[in-house]
This record gives sequence, structure tokens and C-alpha cells, in this order.
Amino acid sequence: MDIQNLLDDIVGSIKPHIGQGEVAGYIPELGSVRADHFGISVATGDGEVFSSGDSEMAFSIQSISKVYALALVLAGDGDRIWKRVFREPSGNPFNSLVQLEHEDGIPRNPFINAGALVVTDRLLSVSQDASTAVRDLLRTESGNGSIQIDSIVADSEARNSNRNASLAHFLASCGNLDNPVEEVLDAYISQCSLAMSCTDLALASRFLARNGLRADGTALLSPAQTKRINAVMLTCGTYDAAGEFAYRVGLPGKSGVGGGIIAVVPNNCTICVWSPGLGRSGNSVAGVAALDEFTTRTGLSIF
Amino acid sequence: MDIQNLLDDIVGSIKPHIGQGEVAGYIPELGSVRADHFGISVATGDGEVFSSGDSEMAFSIQSISKVYALALVLAGDGDRIWKRVFREPSGNPFNSLVQLEHEDGIPRNPFINAGALVVTDRLLSVSQDASTAVRDLLRTESGNGSIQIDSIVADSEARNSNRNASLAHFLASCGNLDNPVEEVLDAYISQCSLAMSCTDLALASRFLARNGLRADGTALLSPAQTKRINAVMLTCGTYDAAGEFAYRVGLPGKSGVGGGIIAVVPNNCTICVWSPGLGRSGNSVAGVAALDEFTTRTGLSIF
Amino acid sequence: MDIQNLLDDIVGSIKPHIGQGEVAGYIPELGSVRADHFGISVATGDGEVFSSGDSEMAFSIQSISKVYALALVLAGDGDRIWKRVFREPSGNPFNSLVQLEHEDGIPRNPFINAGALVVTDRLLSVSQDASTAVRDLLRTESGNGSIQIDSIVADSEARNSNRNASLAHFLASCGNLDNPVEEVLDAYISQCSLAMSCTDLALASRFLARNGLRADGTALLSPAQTKRINAVMLTCGTYDAAGEFAYRVGLPGKSGVGGGIIAVVPNNCTICVWSPGLGRSGNSVAGVAALDEFTTRTGLSIF
Amino acid sequence: MDIQNLLDDIVGSIKPHIGQGEVAGYIPELGSVRADHFGISVATGDGEVFSSGDSEMAFSIQSISKVYALALVLAGDGDRIWKRVFREPSGNPFNSLVQLEHEDGIPRNPFINAGALVVTDRLLSVSQDASTAVRDLLRTESGNGSIQIDSIVADSEARNSNRNASLAHFLASCGNLDNPVEEVLDAYISQCSLAMSCTDLALASRFLARNGLRADGTALLSPAQTKRINAVMLTCGTYDAAGEFAYRVGLPGKSGVGGGIIAVVPNNCTICVWSPGLGRSGNSVAGVAALDEFTTRTGLSIF
Repeated sequence: MDIQNLLDDIVGSIKPHIGQGEVAGYIPELGSVRADHFGISVATGDGEVFSSGDSEMAFSIQSISKVYALALVLAGDGDRIWKRVFREPSGNPFNSLVQLEHEDGIPRNPFINAGALVVTDRLLSVSQDASTAVRDLLRTESGNGSIQIDSIVADSEARNSNRNASLAHFLASCGNLDNPVEEVLDAYISQCSLAMSCTDLALASRFLARNGLRADGTALLSPAQTKRINAVMLTCGTYDAAGEFAYRVGLPGKSGVGGGIIAVVPNNCTICVWSPGLGRSGNSVAGVAALDEFTTRTGLSIF
Repeated sequence: MDIQNLLDDIVGSIKPHIGQGEVAGYIPELGSVRADHFGISVATGDGEVFSSGDSEMAFSIQSISKVYALALVLAGDGDRIWKRVFREPSGNPFNSLVQLEHEDGIPRNPFINAGALVVTDRLLSVSQDASTAVRDLLRTESGNGSIQIDSIVADSEARNSNRNASLAHFLASCGNLDNPVEEVLDAYISQCSLAMSCTDLALASRFLARNGLRADGTALLSPAQTKRINAVMLTCGTYDAAGEFAYRVGLPGKSGVGGGIIAVVPNNCTICVWSPGLGRSGNSVAGVAALDEFTTRTGLSIF
Repeated sequence: MDIQNLLDDIVGSIKPHIGQGEVAGYIPELGSVRADHFGISVATGDGEVFSSGDSEMAFSIQSISKVYALALVLAGDGDRIWKRVFREPSGNPFNSLVQLEHEDGIPRNPFINAGALVVTDRLLSVSQDASTAVRDLLRTESGNGSIQIDSIVADSEARNSNRNASLAHFLASCGNLDNPVEEVLDAYISQCSLAMSCTDLALASRFLARNGLRADGTALLSPAQTKRINAVMLTCGTYDAAGEFAYRVGLPGKSGVGGGIIAVVPNNCTICVWSPGLGRSGNSVAGVAALDEFTTRTGLSIF
Repeated sequence: MDIQNLLDDIVGSIKPHIGQGEVAGYIPELGSVRADHFGISVATGDGEVFSSGDSEMAFSIQSISKVYALALVLAGDGDRIWKRVFREPSGNPFNSLVQLEHEDGIPRNPFINAGALVVTDRLLSVSQDASTAVRDLLRTESGNGSIQIDSIVADSEARNSNRNASLAHFLASCGNLDNPVEEVLDAYISQCSLAMSCTDLALASRFLARNGLRADGTALLSPAQTKRINAVMLTCGTYDAAGEFAYRVGLPGKSGVGGGIIAVVPNNCTICVWSPGLGRSGNSVAGVAALDEFTTRTGLSIF
């Protein structure tokens, strides 16, 4: 099938879903984005890119950033991080404290907020400037040197970060943060506030579809590390709807409350979709529908 | 790689793990099995079988039976079952009542006990004799017409079924059982008490690696239904260690407390391992280690 | 103050609350009671009785029976029961399984359903016929030899007992029932189905206001045992609204979903109110309001 | 009975319990207190004081301060606070976040940490300087003008306040704090760090045994408000051991992790005990045993 035609088809057929769901409202800056955007980009292993819709419009990547922070920690520090965060689906909302309390401050996985705070804490220890490290990885891999942290979003989040501050102080009370709570929160908010387009994200994520190889052909991760990130994305990447996502889409994926989702077809390609309306679990409604159609029509499921 | 040599290698290298973990003790009959058994069988899509170790010794399939009951319900009744059971990882032990109470009697997925009871209840409504339906499917697909319910195990389980009875009465109190509690429990216990070997199970599960095609080439399930069972196996098939299994093994899999695990390489083959010693979450310790080695050495991960 | 006038006043002033709340609907027989009944009786330590409203009409005592079962177990078997049931408020609904699972099958207190099933199990072991023992105590202490189990209510409950059966099987799975599940459930349902009037219950409960002395002046319980039952009633007698009841009424009390509440003024009197409309936590709305007015006007709070 | 002799007796008989339990270790300054202290003081309604043991030694009152903060809020602001905090036992540890998350940021009662933070937040709004208001009340009612905040303890707590900071940020994320998180935490830590003796506390608490009358005979609280604080103390004053405390001691009481407990005999007297060794739920082991003996020997239970 011709990928470009397929993406154009999806932009047409997805229209009934656009505007469904709620735009993330807990941060004023996110809430002001118009709900009717939709973009999709596919980047193949050998560097071709296909796009349709609002694929060049930058949006706030939010929790998608957790994938790259984890990749950098694994690349720079190996498997130590797994002593401080589990790899199990949580079965609870992304910002829940319940399991953290029952399980002595070890978050269920690196893609719920608590786990991502631990990963960012480790990245701070490994790299000094965690959010710059994430930004630089994304610039290099996407080839877009102008990727920036959206400081208005970051400031807005910083003024509305009580829930994450609660999680971070809880982790600290359990001895699971090495750096000061405020520094971890700052770095976490900064990485979440990176603004990128579907095309940027699809390109920047290609290492997940290439056994860990960077755009320049050098290894960011080993093949085993890469497979394992994909496995954690599949089981934990879309919050308490990870089972539903695996069932419908059948690909490793990671969503953000900005409305973006990155999905991986191992040894083949990456797909990035974006539409701001979120379902109950915090995943883009139109985005999930688009990925569902993509895998149904291409047969590119891992199952 | 030569599969037979690989399996023989695994039988050798897995030795340090054999006897690790605890043999399931909640039923006397299961507890009396010797811990040091280990068997492995691989069945390819075109019907070849490779085996090593105790691969022809019958063991109690227990929760592995949940896969076939679900397949029969989907085959005979379509997607209706998903109104009565979710598809999300539970993040809790397999016999937990906690989520059931918080979520109004809708089990998290069909592979925890509560969800499997709902599936068996539906299979009873669809097929009258649920456990015979499961047995007959397994006989036909494995080509072994002598597969039987082990009545000693079934009787032992029936005398020790308070926890499952608690779950079943809870489901009934929420209106999520159509048949009498005792009949559902009987059918559930019977299907769990089927005795099969690794070779039987690997052969009988091939429809999961063949887009739903039965041994005789007819369709048990559609390709989409098959992919979706595999997706649910990946996210929910190994209880609250599903994330760990995806991370280490990277294949859809379903375990049972008898020590068996069935794993699927879509469009390729099925693998069945058996060793009775269980880890904390109820999965065979040596079995998981063997599958880990299998996917590491063959590269046959879905990620 | 003249008690009779006070009770007549309360019958008048309570009218706006009568019919509020919901009549217990989970058993058809309970659900058929008219919501607009209200009765109140006070029995003093020396045997005087004052009554107003529907004080002579028999209603289903339901969970109020838990107090007398506990008293009989303590009288006949001492403090052994406290190894099998805690004495803490549960903070959860009366039929919850959540804490039971987290706390290995030891119920939080003897007045939630799980705890009462354990008490009834012990009473069965101590007295053979548990519900007859409860009935006989209530007949003797009230002086009303015609008190009976309402067999229509009992049969209705037996046909709708899945939730309690779930609790009982769970307890059995944890080794916290000595007698067969069915016998415990039968005895429990029978004691709950006793039909009594406000006057019967106020008289029959006088031992709680008389340091354990029965109507005939002999000791059913020691003064210390009696105080302790009153303490457990205060902290646990009105389900997850025990704090609210202590705050508003300020007396030890035990409610039932039949709409009755028994309250104790130590060394003084007992008060029984009845009105079938229940609030969210399962306590009689008009009953609590009447007790609130009673303690406000008499000053008879323990605080 | 002669109270002085009784207290001296208790000091003798309690010896086997002294040193049992663990001194609170989460703050270094508290952990450095010697475990073998024991003091007891009784203050009667008309102002007599009886003391024995280390009754004049100042200790950190910690959570006992929650009673006085609540009294000041009720005195100055009436019942508004009950819209922001419930009055139910929590059934969970004092610093738990679980219920807070399940119940939208409304703490179960004013005596767990989350609830006390809400009360302090309100006291800040009502009185500007919350901890000074608490200190001044305690100075005036005890007649000891030298009562001070122990700044070393306060500083130590401030450096170890991640768990309370987690609770406070969670409350703020739910909109249940009016003042900045840091100000609320500062005021809370300051009031907890007040250093007082058993005699100071027994005297300062007499309003709870005098229907709300202050030492000078004016009303701090109405009789109804006073009864209700006592009721909340009984059901919620000793954390998740409130049922056990009611069962054994039979009086409203409030404990602190400094090892102090204040108990109230309404219309009669107050009792303060102190011994630093804490049981599993955070209450003084020797203190509870001493109060148990006190009520057993005097018969001064409310039940």
C-alpha cells in the first residue's frame, strides 16, 4: 500500500473523532489549544518520512518525553534504574499515589508520573542537566535543531504542579530521590514542555524501530535494551488503558496529555499522531482511532 | 539455528533454575508433583514439533485453560463478552477481590480468576458443557484424543475452592453470572484440571500463531480476534508479572499454577514449557528462564 | 424532663425526616416495608419502659443481632474471639472485602458482616444452634416469649445472599471459619431475620446499660466485658458512619438495615428507634435524627 | 480512692512496659529522647493537679497539638471546617494518602495528618499566626507562660517533612488549602514542636472536661462543641488503634509521636501520660497501659 495515500485516507476517515474527548485542562496553557487539530507522520527505518494533516505543527510532548529520558538513563547508566522502579502495569491512573504507598515508594513503571520522576532524578545525577540532555537527543535524532522547551507551558505547569510535587515529596520520603525535590520537578516539567511536531517525534523515535541505532548509525541502546523499552511501552505506555491500546492498536506506544502518541513497529517504522482531545485515561481519542486504522489496514501489528 | 539442538541446550542450561520456587501448595494434589521436572516443546505453523526434557509428561494445565475457553467464547459468541470483562492488566494478584469491589463486579481481564469465571459462565450458556468443549478443542487441535480431565485434581480443587467460590459469589452478587454459582465453579475447576503434555499444548495452541486457523485449516477465529487474544495474553497472561514477562521474554504468554506456560510467536510457532516451581506471582521460575533464553538466542521477540 | 412527653415530642418533630432515605432494597421482603413508620422506646435500668409511635410493631432486626451474638460468645467463651476478629473501625462499607484481603482474613471488627460471620461461626461451635441461642436471649431479656425468626425474610435473604456467601467463602479460604460455610450463613441469616419491636429491643438490651446484669439480676457479662461491647458499638456500630454517629448522638449504638437502631446510656437506659428509610451508610435517617434530638434535649451523651 | 496514691501505684506497676516500643525515629531530634521516661498528671475540673513520675519534664507534644488547633478553629470559625474534613475513623495509618486520593482530597478526620493540615490552614486564615495562637491558648490554660516551640525539633522536622509536604501538596492539588503549602507546613510543624509537660497538658486540656469552659470561667467552646471534639477524639484520636484504645481505656484521647497522650473524663478531669516508646500504630505503649490501669481502677470509663 502507498503510505502517503493511507495517511491522507486516515486524515479523512478520522474526522468524526476529531474534537472528541477533553483537552487537558489542568494546565491553562494546554487547555487553550484548539481541539480540532489532527496530524500524523510515519518515519521508516531508512529515513523516509510520510505525513498528513497538522503534522508540522508543534505541540507539547508531555509524557512522551518519558521514553527519551528512560533511553538516556539506560544508555548512560545501564540497568541500575530497575532497582528503583518496577516494570509492571499499574492498573491505576497515571498520577496515583495509592500503589506508591503500598509498595514503599517504588513506582510501578517508568511511564507513570512517579516512575518518570525517579528516572529524571537519575538522569540529573548522570547528566547534570536532564532536560537539556533530552532536548539534545531529540534535536539530534530528528535533525531539527530548533526544538525548544516552551517556557510558557513550563511556567504554567510549574504553577500547577501540586500533584507532581506530592508524588516527588512522597518518593523523597521513601528515599527514592537523590536530588532535591525542586530540582527534580524543574527538570521533569522542562522535559514535558518540549514542543515538537509529529514529524519531529516520528524521526526522533526511529532508534526504537532500529534496534537502538541512532540516525547516524551509532548505537544509542543495545538491541536487547531497545526491545525492552518497547515491551514496557506496550504494557505501560498508555496509562490504565494499556490493555485496550494493545488490543486495538497492537503496537508499543507512549501517549502524552498534549494529545500526542508515538508508536513503534519494530524493525520497520515509527508513527506519531496528534490530536488534543483526550479520553478518560488521558490518551488522544482521535490518535488512538488513527493508529487503530493504521494497523488494521497495514496489518502492522506485533501480534 | 537448529531448533532441536537449541531445546536440548536449554534443558542443560536451565538446570540451576529447576527446583527453584514453590510448587503450588493450595491444592494437595498439585503440591505432590516433584519440583525437578522440566519440559519444552515447540510447534511450528506447518506442524513440525521439537521437544526436549519431560515434554511428553502430562501436567495440570490450570490457568492455561483460560485461553481456550476465551477462544471458544469469541468463536461462538463474538465480542459480547467484553461487556462483562475488561481487557486491562490488573496490577493485583490473580485471585484478588479488591478491584472487583471497586469496579462493580467487572473483572479487569479474562485471565485473572474472576474474569475466567465470567468467560466460563458465558461458555456454559453458549455450549452447555463448558469443560467438555474446552477438552474437545484441545483434543482436536493437538491430535491427542486421550486428553482427559484429571478427576483426582478436580476433586482436590473442588474441596479447596473457597477463594474461587468467594469470587464467583461476588460476581453473582453484582449480576455478572448467568448460571448457578456451583455450575460455573464445577466447569471452571474441570477445565483447569485437564492434564496435558508440553507437546500437546504447543500443538493445540498453534491457532494463535496461525491467525486463527485450526489444524485442519479451517478458521476458529478471525485474524483480528487472534491478534487480540495474543495482545491480552501479553498484557495480562502472567498475572501481576505480565510487565516482567514482556520485558524478559517479549512474547504473548499464559501461565498456570501447574507450572506450564504457553507462549506464541505470531506467524511462526508456539512454545510450551513446564516446570512446577513457581515464583511469587505464580509463574514457573524455570519456565520463564527457558523462554527468556529461547527468545534471546533466536531473536524471536515481538519487540 | 418527663421522658414520655419527650418521646411524644420527638415523634412530632421527627416527621420531616420520616420517609427520607431508601428502604433496604437488596432483599425483596425488606424492600416491601412502608417507609413512613417511626417508633421509639426507652427502657431504664430498673425496668421502666416509655414508648411512642410505632413502638410495638415488629421489624427485622438484621445487624442489631450482631450485638447479642457477640455478647453470647463473650459470655460463653471469653476473649478467644479477639484472635479471629479485630476491634477497629473499618472505614469501609459493611460488606466490603477489601480490608479482609489486605489483612489475611481477619475482619476489622465484629459488627461488619465479615466479623459477624466469624462471631456466628464461634457461637455455632459454642452453642450448636446459634440463632436459637440469640433468639432465646432476646426472649428472656425482653420478657416476650413470642419473638420469632421471620421465615419469609430469612428465605428471601437466603435467596439473595451472594455477597455474604462471598465473604464467608473468603473467610473459609483464610482458615477463619470452623464450621461449614452453609451452616454459618444459615445461622447468620436466621439471627438477622428475628422480628422484634422497639420495646422488645430496648428491654432486651438493658444488660448493656447495667454492667452486664440480665433482667433477672444475674450476670450475663462482667462490667469490663460490657463496657468493652459498648466501646466497640461506639467505634464500629454504625458502619462507615460511626464517627458521624458519635459526633451527633454521642452514645454507643448499633444499627440494622431493617431501620432499627439500639443505643445505650451506660448505667442509665437503652433507647431503640425504628424507621425504615436508610442513609448512604445504611443507618436509619429518621432514627439517627431522633437519637440526636434525644441526647441534645436530655444531655445524656457519654461525652 | 486517693488519686495521688493511685498515680504513684501506676508509676510502679507500669515499669515492665517502660522502654517497650520504639522511640519515634523519623526525626533525629525525637529519636534522641531516652525511652525510659514515664510521667502522669491528672487535673480535676476545679483545678487540682496530681502528678507522679516525670510529670514536669517537657516533651514534644506533636499530634496532641491537633486538638487545640481544632478547638481554636471551632471557637473562631464555627462548623465551616467540617466541609473540608470528615469526622470518620480512617482505618489507615496517620500519614496515609490512600483515602485522600479515593475521596477527592477531603481528609477522613482532623486528627490524621492530612486533616490537621487542613485545620491549620484554616487557623492560618482565621488567626494569621496559627502556631502562636495554639501556643498562647496552651500558655493561658496551663498557667505556664514559658511554654515554647522547641526550635531544634521544629528545624529537625522541617528538614524531614517530605511525607507531610506530600500530603499538603496533594491537598493543594485538590483545592483544599487556602494558604501557600510552605506556610501551612511551617505552622503545622511549629505547633507540633511545642514542648510541654504532663502537668501543663493536663491543665491546658481542662476545657474538654468542663463543657468548653476556660480556666478563667469564660467559654472557649459551647458544651455541644466540646462533646463533639471528645467524640472525634474517641473515634479518631489514636490513629488506626482508636478502636483498641476505646476498648481498653474507654476515654476520649489524643496521642502524639513524642509519646504523650491526653485523655478526658467528661465533667470530671483530664489525664496526661508520657513515655516515648511507641507501638505499631504510633501510640505510647506505657502510656496506653497506664491509662488502662487508671480507668480499670477508678471505673472512670465513659462506657
